[in-house]
Amino acid sequence: MNPSFPTPSCWLTHRVSYGETDAMGVVYYANYLHLFERGRSELIRSLGLSYQVVEERGFFLPVREAQCRYLAPARYDEIIHIHTGLSGKTRASMSFVYEITNADKNITLARGSTQHAVVNAQGKPVRIPDWIADLFC
Amino acid sequence: MNPSFPTPSCWLTHRVSYGETDAMGVVYYANYLHLFERGRSELIRSLGLSYQVVEERGFFLPVREAQCRYLAPARYDEIIHIHTGLSGKTRASMSFVYEITNADKNITLARGSTQHAVVNAQGKPVRIPDWIADLFC
Amino acid sequence: MNPSFPTPSCWLTHRVSYGETDAMGVVYYANYLHLFERGRSELIRSLGLSYQVVEERGFFLPVREAQCRYLAPARYDEIIHIHTGLSGKTRASMSFVYEITNADKNITLARGSTQHAVVNAQGKPVRIPDWIADLFC
Amino acid sequence: MNPSFPTPSCWLTHRVSYGETDAMGVVYYANYLHLFERGRSELIRSLGLSYQVVEERGFFLPVREAQCRYLAPARYDEIIHIHTGLSGKTRASMSFVYEITNADKNITLARGSTQHAVVNAQGKPVRIPDWIADLFC
Repeated sequence: MNPSFPTPSCWLTHRVSYGETDAMGVVYYANYLHLFERGRSELIRSLGLSYQVVEERGFFLPVREAQCRYLAPARYDEIIHIHTGLSGKTRASMSFVYEITNADKNITLARGSTQHAVVNAQGKPVRIPDWIADLFC
Repeated sequence: MNPSFPTPSCWLTHRVSYGETDAMGVVYYANYLHLFERGRSELIRSLGLSYQVVEERGFFLPVREAQCRYLAPARYDEIIHIHTGLSGKTRASMSFVYEITNADKNITLARGSTQHAVVNAQGKPVRIPDWIADLFC
Repeated sequence: MNPSFPTPSCWLTHRVSYGETDAMGVVYYANYLHLFERGRSELIRSLGLSYQVVEERGFFLPVREAQCRYLAPARYDEIIHIHTGLSGKTRASMSFVYEITNADKNITLARGSTQHAVVNAQGKPVRIPDWIADLFC
Repeated sequence: MNPSFPTPSCWLTHRVSYGETDAMGVVYYANYLHLFERGRSELIRSLGLSYQVVEERGFFLPVREAQCRYLAPARYDEIIHIHTGLSGKTRASMSFVYEITNADKNITLARGSTQHAVVNAQGKPVRIPDWIADLFC
């Protein structure tokens, strides 16, 4: 879809459930952030780690900012695709971008981004450990 | 509404949001269990405790069974009321019943129940501590 | 898992997202009803129809009753399986049963059921049309 | 909290439920957009209209863009306040800003914004009808 999409990236396929829709008959706007999280988890997983392991080792990636542009609605039973890429990385933060498309990947339904801090179990910002940073080289 | 509703009990008022509805234009069926939780929390709070304190003291009340009958739909922007009562208590479990009504409390929208175990932080079933049991006398 | 599970039936695989969990670290109890809906949609789809088409033809299957027993928790990032079967059918209602298992299908996490009315666009109960009933023979 | 917050504006009080939290023990990030919708509905209601009536008259305000900065977590059972204001209005769009605070209104938990198109029942952009625009003068 997007030749300039940052790497590493991955695609995740998702079926829209009835519970994700609202009275307008389309996916409720807050649920796109939930879909972004599914994409983000899949990206980390596709690089050989699980976010569950990140937490087990005492690190957390709370969201500091999220943003979404809604371009076209998604409806019940539709297959959609979530494209997730790493857009940036500093000593203590990570940023992801997202693109959600229809089944044929020829219509972009939404575009968004999230920024995450890296914190320890006490919620204190810490430097990204190498075993996370190295995944995204 | 219901003269035989068990005590202690309490009422909680709730405004239906757009995000709670689905493509049928009514509150999505799973969200009623979420409303039951709001009612249950309010009942515990109305008796002078918070479920947060229960957890801080190392006790948890995971749901073992939940059930709901859907009698009439609730729509966006409606005021609804959640009536919650304690229906039973054993050495290691508690049961609650729920009734959700329209704004005027003359139409019952849903009726349900939940059963809860009492467990410690390790998830092991334990006897209900007195400071919980005594609340519901 | 269950030799007596009713047919027709189908399996759907689901990855637990972070947004489906709660502060206890496990899938929030109301979300199981959302998973049941995913299983139910998949069963209808596996028989050659989509629930979306059912609605486009003017029929709706609102839930009249739902029930769930919670046997073991599901955690973030887990693969789980949703087994859905048709357990009953009358002139104007349909019933489904559900079993949710861990990734290896050797632990049952939850069991549940839903009963549905068949109504028209005005919400009036109607006889199940043959093109739905025949699917489940 | 914020002397430059745009008017008209309103406050809505909300109790954090268990179902709104995630495994980190805090309100899941997507749920803030759900809270923004509660605030937005309340603002429209406080001005003498209901968004339900807007839809009944054939107008819809789908979200075109949403954004949220997460400053401090909200936990189960907390009372929080949602401050919503109209930040802009063009011939065919409306923008809102949001601030979510703790119970004492001395800590800002989140800040965000949404932009909305005005469309008819066919999803076509239309000019804001006077009876909506006049509310926000």
